[in-house]
Amino acid sequence: MDIPGDFGEAFIDQDIGDRIWAVAAKIFPICRSITGDGVRQTLREIGTHIALDIHEVPTGTAVFDWTVPREWNIRDAYIKDGRGNKIVDFAQSNLHVMSYSIPVRKHVSLAELKQHIHTLPEQPDLIPYRTSYYAEGWAFCMTHHQFQGLRDETYEVFIDSSLEGGHLTYGEFFHQGETDEEFLLSAHVCHPSLANDNCTGLALLTLLGKKMTGLRTRFSYRFLFAPGTIGAISWLARNEDKTQRIRHGLVVSMVGDGGGPTYKRSRRGSAAIDRAMVHVLRHSFPTSMVLDFSPYGYDERQYCSPGFNLPVGLIQRSQFGKIPQYHTSADNLEFIRPEYLAQSYRLIVEALDVIENDAILRSTMPKCEPQLGKRGLYGAVGGDKNSAAINMAMLWVLNQSDGMHSLLDIAERACLPFAVVSRTAKLLQKHGLLAGATPAIVDPMPSGAAQSSLIR
Amino acid sequence: MDIPGDFGEAFIDQDIGDRIWAVAAKIFPICRSITGDGVRQTLREIGTHIALDIHEVPTGTAVFDWTVPREWNIRDAYIKDGRGNKIVDFAQSNLHVMSYSIPVRKHVSLAELKQHIHTLPEQPDLIPYRTSYYAEGWAFCMTHHQFQGLRDETYEVFIDSSLEGGHLTYGEFFHQGETDEEFLLSAHVCHPSLANDNCTGLALLTLLGKKMTGLRTRFSYRFLFAPGTIGAISWLARNEDKTQRIRHGLVVSMVGDGGGPTYKRSRRGSAAIDRAMVHVLRHSFPTSMVLDFSPYGYDERQYCSPGFNLPVGLIQRSQFGKIPQYHTSADNLEFIRPEYLAQSYRLIVEALDVIENDAILRSTMPKCEPQLGKRGLYGAVGGDKNSAAINMAMLWVLNQSDGMHSLLDIAERACLPFAVVSRTAKLLQKHGLLAGATPAIVDPMPSGAAQSSLIR
Amino acid sequence: MDIPGDFGEAFIDQDIGDRIWAVAAKIFPICRSITGDGVRQTLREIGTHIALDIHEVPTGTAVFDWTVPREWNIRDAYIKDGRGNKIVDFAQSNLHVMSYSIPVRKHVSLAELKQHIHTLPEQPDLIPYRTSYYAEGWAFCMTHHQFQGLRDETYEVFIDSSLEGGHLTYGEFFHQGETDEEFLLSAHVCHPSLANDNCTGLALLTLLGKKMTGLRTRFSYRFLFAPGTIGAISWLARNEDKTQRIRHGLVVSMVGDGGGPTYKRSRRGSAAIDRAMVHVLRHSFPTSMVLDFSPYGYDERQYCSPGFNLPVGLIQRSQFGKIPQYHTSADNLEFIRPEYLAQSYRLIVEALDVIENDAILRSTMPKCEPQLGKRGLYGAVGGDKNSAAINMAMLWVLNQSDGMHSLLDIAERACLPFAVVSRTAKLLQKHGLLAGATPAIVDPMPSGAAQSSLIR
Repeated sequence: MDIPGDFGEAFIDQDIGDRIWAVAAKIFPICRSITGDGVRQTLREIGTHIALDIHEVPTGTAVFDWTVPREWNIRDAYIKDGRGNKIVDFAQSNLHVMSYSIPVRKHVSLAELKQHIHTLPEQPDLIPYRTSYYAEGWAFCMTHHQFQGLRDETYEVFIDSSLEGGHLTYGEFFHQGETDEEFLLSAHVCHPSLANDNCTGLALLTLLGKKMTGLRTRFSYRFLFAPGTIGAISWLARNEDKTQRIRHGLVVSMVGDGGGPTYKRSRRGSAAIDRAMVHVLRHSFPTSMVLDFSPYGYDERQYCSPGFNLPVGLIQRSQFGKIPQYHTSADNLEFIRPEYLAQSYRLIVEALDVIENDAILRSTMPKCEPQLGKRGLYGAVGGDKNSAAINMAMLWVLNQSDGMHSLLDIAERACLPFAVVSRTAKLLQKHGLLAGATPAIVDPMPSGAAQSSLIR
Repeated sequence: MDIPGDFGEAFIDQDIGDRIWAVAAKIFPICRSITGDGVRQTLREIGTHIALDIHEVPTGTAVFDWTVPREWNIRDAYIKDGRGNKIVDFAQSNLHVMSYSIPVRKHVSLAELKQHIHTLPEQPDLIPYRTSYYAEGWAFCMTHHQFQGLRDETYEVFIDSSLEGGHLTYGEFFHQGETDEEFLLSAHVCHPSLANDNCTGLALLTLLGKKMTGLRTRFSYRFLFAPGTIGAISWLARNEDKTQRIRHGLVVSMVGDGGGPTYKRSRRGSAAIDRAMVHVLRHSFPTSMVLDFSPYGYDERQYCSPGFNLPVGLIQRSQFGKIPQYHTSADNLEFIRPEYLAQSYRLIVEALDVIENDAILRSTMPKCEPQLGKRGLYGAVGGDKNSAAINMAMLWVLNQSDGMHSLLDIAERACLPFAVVSRTAKLLQKHGLLAGATPAIVDPMPSGAAQSSLIR
Repeated sequence: MDIPGDFGEAFIDQDIGDRIWAVAAKIFPICRSITGDGVRQTLREIGTHIALDIHEVPTGTAVFDWTVPREWNIRDAYIKDGRGNKIVDFAQSNLHVMSYSIPVRKHVSLAELKQHIHTLPEQPDLIPYRTSYYAEGWAFCMTHHQFQGLRDETYEVFIDSSLEGGHLTYGEFFHQGETDEEFLLSAHVCHPSLANDNCTGLALLTLLGKKMTGLRTRFSYRFLFAPGTIGAISWLARNEDKTQRIRHGLVVSMVGDGGGPTYKRSRRGSAAIDRAMVHVLRHSFPTSMVLDFSPYGYDERQYCSPGFNLPVGLIQRSQFGKIPQYHTSADNLEFIRPEYLAQSYRLIVEALDVIENDAILRSTMPKCEPQLGKRGLYGAVGGDKNSAAINMAMLWVLNQSDGMHSLLDIAERACLPFAVVSRTAKLLQKHGLLAGATPAIVDPMPSGAAQSSLIR
């Protein structure tokens, strides 16, 4: 095995942030839910960039402890006041209707209407995002200011939705690498017009997949665009045999704001993806946060359930639930920025670079240091106070390449960025001082217990 | 195995603090030592609450490297000045006489008297507590202020004591549990009128044993009320075969003041009792201190000697030797308070709850999360920012119940109180989502070396 | 095995600092390099104190990846200005000539001269130390102030040196101990008039070896006085079979200033020498620094190369490269002081004491505490608040001497100086309470990987 070319740089384009933002903006207006045409329309848009396979799972399909629900679609919805003015209009914001609201058309008193309205009293200018997938009902969402101004009159409520047998829809893009070992990249596709959560994750993975097309990688990459929870569960239920191949994984969401970045470890705690992400974050972002695994969050909940215990972490900018924009109308296109999207993209690419290129090499001159000077690899004038620094990477790689330490091991011990260690190893390999690159050992699929105890 | 009922709550009575204080007050005036009728009288009082077995070990009995000493009894003692006034009187405080003082009746000069007096120059208002079990002699203890006021005259000293062949006495109360595995609870019974050290430990264990009578427990409980050092050594020497059954243990002393609480780990460092006590303290007492094992202290010195290495820790409020009242006349009934005694009792009961109920369960739905909502276990409206918190315990228990993690493991990882995790597990078990509860694995009896190296 | 006498005290003389300083002062003026007569003259001086074996390795000898270079000697050198005044004179400071400068005698313009001059612009009053062992050339070193004052005229440059086939020279002193297991003590002999770096290391080891002569030690001691890098590599190449015997080692340099002390761990990270040095430093020097291994520094680079991975650390006062005097004319005899040399000597002797005397003993009374009082080993009056402290060492040693913990293990766990634990163990051994002293287990020669992962 050669150490491949620099995976990282090949993937970075100058305008990547703008391009991710543009894709996010394109899918932002669509009204998505865990089923329905909004998901299909979103996947069609993603499919204009990458060769997406669309899967339809019929309503009623049993997926582990769950059942695929009826399909929900909505065409229009409003509240009209006594004079016939639309005071709430689905066409203006799809957050106005609670997701999975059943159809309704009737006149209601203010008192009855209030029982079907969600607001955020502490954020009175924002519309909340609400769902009720498994308890049948209907509701509108509005700002608390508007709610407080409602007059005591008769209102017309209208939701032109349908909740019927149909399908749950998800999309997959698969990039075949040199091996069948897989890297899973997963983004939820079920939220309506929330820009950061998760138009950004969908858009970033779409353009990452596009960039990967035609490039050589060591791992195969599986991109999954599925509804949260029930979508991931459906995929796992239908692809249980494939989960054995997943060696690494990332759930990607909320990657367009300026917070964090935040990485949440997999349940295993120190899987290769955990080490790679933590390494990259520590060297690139002094403000980054690394969270231990907890069983609340995004679809890592399912991937990391004890029966699978896959090495899948979560990458975000701000942590979900910790910012005022979370699950409100303030999570709009102004909240996300191309520069942050570019940073997030680069971070993920750098972690992939570690995963792809981490390898164990062996010094061909293990006894004493090789003479770097005669190969032109060393400052020629000894005694210079500054020559030490520029030679440290070479010395570390040679000292630690005893067949037991991978390049990431060395980068961690030497406190050097992986890319520096990796470039140095290539240079030393070219001069015959390193040999026998073999992929770094990836943990086998252990029981959750054995692994997680490492960070107890 | 079922997860038993809530061990903790069954044991707590509202007036428990007052009742422990009352028992402590009853035995406070008795003049105890490592042998003699004071010990017997104390054990008789304890025996009015629980079915105590009294054991008498003859003087001269070899117990490991030690020999049971002669029995000491005292009836009266005083110092009279030149005019016949009692300036020191045993009847007023039994601390006035050094424990194990031999009989004496003579007239002495001030100079000679001073060679037989102990004071505390830095605490001039307090009478010290002194003993001389193994070096024959006699002495009085008084305040330093009194000592400084002694005039140069002839004094009469009188100690009506006896030091003769007899017995060493200790008491045992045994509560049979469902298994023969034992939990040892030990309190020293050898100190005279020192309220906190250890009328409180004796009284607390007495009422804990009383409460336990008739209740079902998993472990059998052995309560030992024995003189410090020589008493514990005598018990160990006479019951060496039983020590194999001791799976957990606590030495209880000084549990009536408002300091700490202080837990000193067993020599093993991370035995189940260590984990349980540390867990309970961290969740209940922000001011608590956890000390690593050291070979100085109470009878954990003997239980944790290398030839036994039993998993026995020490629970106290203030740490011994660290407070001005320690081993002085200021350790009186005003120094101990019902509220602190109730706290200490509750702490111990909570730790016993962990030990009794720690179990390993298995999720019956290990692949993906079970659908809590359809069982009424989950907030029905998604997207709510606050619903996460109330569901965390369920998610943690389900995620970690892979057959390898006990409830205490889960409580530690989730930073949740054991009682919350335990209640949650019961709820999930009732809904069929957890099965197969087996007792948490307790460390076998390892060599001290192997275990203690864990916290080196 | 007995616990030997106190290794430490036998080695300390009151005037040791002055005597080390005197030896350092004697060899300071000599112009050393990695080869040549300066090394031979230095070794002859050392040989007046200890029975030194001198080894000569011919130019051209292959030593691993390196080749022994031509031998360099220098007799005179100067720069004369236009009026014939010597403005730089080798006789005044051998730092004025770059080490390994080829012979030159010619007249040069200021412009050409400047291409052959090294200065320290940020330390304008100091002459730098420069070498060019493997790139042929010539150069002078001077203060930056002098450099700035050079007038535009013609200069005569003269270096009367030779660079020819010859030898590399190193010296060895061997002290036979009771076993053939070796302790390697190594100091570089290649620097010219730099007092701290490394006249001090050479002088300290010289007098340590002298003191050792005739004394009984458990380990055999090998003292190596060799040129840096190429000298250590030559020794390793010629003595590869002997490296199996090296159980401990220290590189000694820069031990005469008042900084630090600084200990750099071996590549293994927790070898016996690492534990011994860290223990001694923590108890003796609150200002000491302990550095993790890194592959830059002195000859520990070679000893700790992955093919050898010997347990060799580095002891210094100030850390190399971190002080302004480093590799300049300010590293002179005024910079080093007898008191610091005495401290450094004592530190090393204390570490040797640990290495020599660390042993595993077994309590002969493992069940309960032995009765110290009846042997006169314990304060006779119980209850005294202060008696605990003075008995702690005995209690720790007895409690931990279960056949698994060495005296150093006990000292570390008890936070007591090794010497206290060792003396206590001797006392207990004398009273029959400890038996069976066997040498502490020294790590076998592991692969670097397995060991170094311990401190990853």
